[in-house]
Amino acid sequence: MPGNTIGKSLILTTYGESHGTQIGGILDGMPSGIEIDLDQVQQALDRRRPGQSHLTTERNEEDAVVFHSGLFEGKTTGTPIAFSISNKDHRSKDYTQIKDIYRPSHADYVYQAKYGHRDYRGGGRSSARETACRVVAGALAVQIIPSIEVKAWVSAVGPIKLAVPFEELNLSAIDKHPTRCPHQETADQMETYIEKCRAASDSTGGIVTAVATGVPVGLGEPVFDKLQADLAKALMGINAVKGFEIGSGFSSSEMTGSLHNDIINEDFSTVTNNAGGIVGGLSNGAPIEIRIAFKPVATIGKEQQTVKKNGESTVIAAKGRHDPCVVPRAVPIVEAMIQLVLADHYLRNLKYNA
Amino acid sequence: MPGNTIGKSLILTTYGESHGTQIGGILDGMPSGIEIDLDQVQQALDRRRPGQSHLTTERNEEDAVVFHSGLFEGKTTGTPIAFSISNKDHRSKDYTQIKDIYRPSHADYVYQAKYGHRDYRGGGRSSARETACRVVAGALAVQIIPSIEVKAWVSAVGPIKLAVPFEELNLSAIDKHPTRCPHQETADQMETYIEKCRAASDSTGGIVTAVATGVPVGLGEPVFDKLQADLAKALMGINAVKGFEIGSGFSSSEMTGSLHNDIINEDFSTVTNNAGGIVGGLSNGAPIEIRIAFKPVATIGKEQQTVKKNGESTVIAAKGRHDPCVVPRAVPIVEAMIQLVLADHYLRNLKYNA
Amino acid sequence: MPGNTIGKSLILTTYGESHGTQIGGILDGMPSGIEIDLDQVQQALDRRRPGQSHLTTERNEEDAVVFHSGLFEGKTTGTPIAFSISNKDHRSKDYTQIKDIYRPSHADYVYQAKYGHRDYRGGGRSSARETACRVVAGALAVQIIPSIEVKAWVSAVGPIKLAVPFEELNLSAIDKHPTRCPHQETADQMETYIEKCRAASDSTGGIVTAVATGVPVGLGEPVFDKLQADLAKALMGINAVKGFEIGSGFSSSEMTGSLHNDIINEDFSTVTNNAGGIVGGLSNGAPIEIRIAFKPVATIGKEQQTVKKNGESTVIAAKGRHDPCVVPRAVPIVEAMIQLVLADHYLRNLKYNA
Amino acid sequence: MPGNTIGKSLILTTYGESHGTQIGGILDGMPSGIEIDLDQVQQALDRRRPGQSHLTTERNEEDAVVFHSGLFEGKTTGTPIAFSISNKDHRSKDYTQIKDIYRPSHADYVYQAKYGHRDYRGGGRSSARETACRVVAGALAVQIIPSIEVKAWVSAVGPIKLAVPFEELNLSAIDKHPTRCPHQETADQMETYIEKCRAASDSTGGIVTAVATGVPVGLGEPVFDKLQADLAKALMGINAVKGFEIGSGFSSSEMTGSLHNDIINEDFSTVTNNAGGIVGGLSNGAPIEIRIAFKPVATIGKEQQTVKKNGESTVIAAKGRHDPCVVPRAVPIVEAMIQLVLADHYLRNLKYNA
Repeated sequence: MPGNTIGKSLILTTYGESHGTQIGGILDGMPSGIEIDLDQVQQALDRRRPGQSHLTTERNEEDAVVFHSGLFEGKTTGTPIAFSISNKDHRSKDYTQIKDIYRPSHADYVYQAKYGHRDYRGGGRSSARETACRVVAGALAVQIIPSIEVKAWVSAVGPIKLAVPFEELNLSAIDKHPTRCPHQETADQMETYIEKCRAASDSTGGIVTAVATGVPVGLGEPVFDKLQADLAKALMGINAVKGFEIGSGFSSSEMTGSLHNDIINEDFSTVTNNAGGIVGGLSNGAPIEIRIAFKPVATIGKEQQTVKKNGESTVIAAKGRHDPCVVPRAVPIVEAMIQLVLADHYLRNLKYNA
Repeated sequence: MPGNTIGKSLILTTYGESHGTQIGGILDGMPSGIEIDLDQVQQALDRRRPGQSHLTTERNEEDAVVFHSGLFEGKTTGTPIAFSISNKDHRSKDYTQIKDIYRPSHADYVYQAKYGHRDYRGGGRSSARETACRVVAGALAVQIIPSIEVKAWVSAVGPIKLAVPFEELNLSAIDKHPTRCPHQETADQMETYIEKCRAASDSTGGIVTAVATGVPVGLGEPVFDKLQADLAKALMGINAVKGFEIGSGFSSSEMTGSLHNDIINEDFSTVTNNAGGIVGGLSNGAPIEIRIAFKPVATIGKEQQTVKKNGESTVIAAKGRHDPCVVPRAVPIVEAMIQLVLADHYLRNLKYNA
Repeated sequence: MPGNTIGKSLILTTYGESHGTQIGGILDGMPSGIEIDLDQVQQALDRRRPGQSHLTTERNEEDAVVFHSGLFEGKTTGTPIAFSISNKDHRSKDYTQIKDIYRPSHADYVYQAKYGHRDYRGGGRSSARETACRVVAGALAVQIIPSIEVKAWVSAVGPIKLAVPFEELNLSAIDKHPTRCPHQETADQMETYIEKCRAASDSTGGIVTAVATGVPVGLGEPVFDKLQADLAKALMGINAVKGFEIGSGFSSSEMTGSLHNDIINEDFSTVTNNAGGIVGGLSNGAPIEIRIAFKPVATIGKEQQTVKKNGESTVIAAKGRHDPCVVPRAVPIVEAMIQLVLADHYLRNLKYNA
Repeated sequence: MPGNTIGKSLILTTYGESHGTQIGGILDGMPSGIEIDLDQVQQALDRRRPGQSHLTTERNEEDAVVFHSGLFEGKTTGTPIAFSISNKDHRSKDYTQIKDIYRPSHADYVYQAKYGHRDYRGGGRSSARETACRVVAGALAVQIIPSIEVKAWVSAVGPIKLAVPFEELNLSAIDKHPTRCPHQETADQMETYIEKCRAASDSTGGIVTAVATGVPVGLGEPVFDKLQADLAKALMGINAVKGFEIGSGFSSSEMTGSLHNDIINEDFSTVTNNAGGIVGGLSNGAPIEIRIAFKPVATIGKEQQTVKKNGESTVIAAKGRHDPCVVPRAVPIVEAMIQLVLADHYLRNLKYNA
């Protein structure tokens, strides 16, 4: 039973392999009559594209999204919105090196075990290329809830951490630095660290922090589809993510109730936001604050021990240029998944009136 | 659109409010012909029950599960298994104190906002009492995959942390200490800390670590229903959970690829397990290692500032006896949710043969 | 993968075997704050009960529905509504006669083949007893859309047919005759025919006609969840149903377009209703008119050739008293399934407002 | 909440409007490693194409399906199969005539009411053009179950009916006659009747009969996803379908149990097949026999009374050439929907082995 669909009222299904002719998806459930800014979608996609800065790979993908249905005279029609993105850079390559090898911390072996074969062309479906479709869908989805703004940024790269509360950050500066960290000094340190990893033919992990503001009160469907549960699922499904926190997150485990409880004001807002904007599985109107941990990229230039498909020992070292840190490019993907979940729950929460 | 159902091939739907006459659920999708050990189910439930040790509340619930269908002559029939648990302790109480108050960090305000009313009787559906149904379902589910063993334990209470790798722990000792920490010395410190919180009319958070061994290779359905994504959803939906990590988790963000990559042995096992048993969204046969952060219990005896439904400021202090730390009781709930997800994905992964 | 759930926004899951201790279900998705008339639910259930007239069996079931959750102070809370009905008449019986026999046109053989065993106690889950849960759920569901009225009646029993258009029938007379045919003269003929079948130790089929009025315009979700598609699924899933028609139904195949097209009036109503209230998969506000064919009851007193589980030939004749015609008792079940589908689509159609 | 997806283990989602640039879909859940004959898919599609015979319209669509993913080296990969079909004939046309008119028995009015706008270009999503995607998906799906053969043919056109049991028909002759009726004499009469309707600027309905042989025993998931229920849903969702019968169908309502019951042979086959291959919601290995009623095409050349969007009375007569009878072209669509449902249930029924 497959798993290429997410959402219940706003339903995204994606397809496509890294080195097929195209990738794409169908977003079903967009209400009719909504004016859609297609430039906004392309801009989101451009932020994810490789080759944006000297920190990332040079895969030459134009990544222009094309829409095939569901839009008429600039508005949604209420029918499914299909879109596709060409894989321009899928020319036949020399996969001899990896065709018969299981790379460390890649999906090669488990895909072979599950599907009985392996699409060795650039990782096939397990490649992060599929996340481009998530970005398209998220940028469409968010347009149904004008009050909501979702912002993500890089808050850690390896040991370099940004500890400033989001209210004190200039979030409009996120895209001004190749690291997508909105704090110049920290960003510069991150850049240096990434360059150092690259020089060592190595890679680094990092953390993305995201904040959604303007979320209406009451989104989420207990007891299993609580808002934080669906956010966790959506975000943990992004390639390389190893951890998810909301609000006080892991630090809450060290706190006492009297310190952790968010005192309620007379207007029902809260003094603190340890909840991270979600209480009892429902949004409470405060900013939803999330942190996502990304492991370092598995593909590195350094030599590593590994095995062939036949179990024979071998050594592998990735050729060519590889991203030493994908976390800056993950920022729009994180935003998109949050946008999708919020829009889905917004529609799931539509009010009944007799 | 509601959210009281989880799973796609093995489907659990639960019902019931804290102070109704009973809670229960339907587990649909259990294959036919499986011998079920009902004692095992009751034992799992007993581990969650309040009043097991001097550390927990004394709510007098027998929590005996009754099965209504789907079992015949000791085996599953392939039809839905319905079960219920009586709420024996739901006698009318004095809710005057909280009926018109929104308690800090409780779901009172958001439930009122979403549903237009509030079941003030012990929290209604937002009470953790519903998790008893999860435990029943998990203990049934795990019986379809005999190879799998899921073990959870308390690895942190407030600032007291257990840093021993799971292979070095005596997991059979988990239930021998009221804290459910299998390391005697650490467990004793946790107990002391919990008692201290209680004495201060306060509460504490903590962390549960869980390990699933014997998981077949290939469970998980990319790209949205990756195994870690569904585990994250299942676990983040438990009351009070604020964070989820798998394998190297948040620490992976600080690591380099050369350090983090799990080198593959000639038998396709890995030298290290930073992946936490899941690569590319699929189980790789290594132990699945998860850590879950629980915030401190919101209900505390200390006086706190809060508001009435009409927005008027007031002060609240919980009466009677309350759990200063629910993390030990969360252990069987964590296990159950992991069991449910693994069993669901086991059935989703059944092999096609022409 | 199981199939005991129906609906997407209003979701019913049922459980229970004919001779277990109880049957029941969970109805999830009922909006909060709706006053529920529980007597109305019990009355619907009473109409399905055996032993109501001299035409039906005498199984002594009180069929009192009990609610366990989701209702508080007379209103829905927005949480799942669980209910159960005891099987009072499930005393141990002598199943020796059928335990090792596959009865003609019963599910005995296919259940054995699919599930690897057979619940021989009164048909287990394949018994029509499960339809009691459908009646409860339908009677709850319809209370969310006060404008809608669903009426069903018996329009044919064997060769005896009622050909009067529904507008000319006195639908308040449906329950006044044991056949549930609202046309006295035809009803009397049906009764005579049923008695004749009984006297011959035989059974008869029949047809139920149903009309839903007051349905808002626009219910239905093309292209796969068109309203008539979901109605067909819901009704074809009732035991013994062999055919489904809407509006002009099979007779439309003989008509020309100029005759069949429903001319639109200036108020957008139509002159005729060959559409049966649904155009392009969407309700158009006209009455939804459906006809359902029921095959004759398979259990008959007459001797029939059949086989044992081991393939040996044998002869079977049902002992005791059996319903010669279940169609009158099917009337509330048909109504319930229509109510469920309409309520589900009503909620699926809730309007988005930015 | 949208409805453009069908199936639970084998999941089809389609998109596309009649006069957009393309239509297409994603078929998710195809097992990996299956050799796919793409010619077989194109051939099925060719059978649905307009302009195949002098009986149908001349819309000049090449209808070449293109695959974008899920296939590698001639086999399925286990990832989603995306496909598209260009709308070559979607050049801008003069829609002035119908833009402001609600045509009788078309979806114009209800689409406007539901979606707040109307895609007047050839019916938009309500056009039967979307069924091309169903044909592609069905032709892919059936390739996973080699034992199954699904054959459909035209068994009635207006008053001309074919009453020969399917075993006596030469089903290889179906495509040899433009009517797709495999009985030469009846087929010729049908053709004459269709020509007569065309000459009168009118249209006619008809009936398609379908038989699926080689279906394994035990497909279907009671109590709501019985095999006949899902078949009914799939087929009632095809444009213009007004009725569905299985096995004895509506005629069963006139029969007695002793006549209708299918006596079981010593090899568990049945002497008769009134069941139509499904008992208790499960396939029993006998041929699945279905009859589907199609109403006459709504678009006719004859003048008809109707209304404008503003409620003003007007007269309409379709210009140009229109299909007087779509039933022959519906044959591959009926086959496809049956293939999809059987393949979905085949995968839902995969066997658990501990």
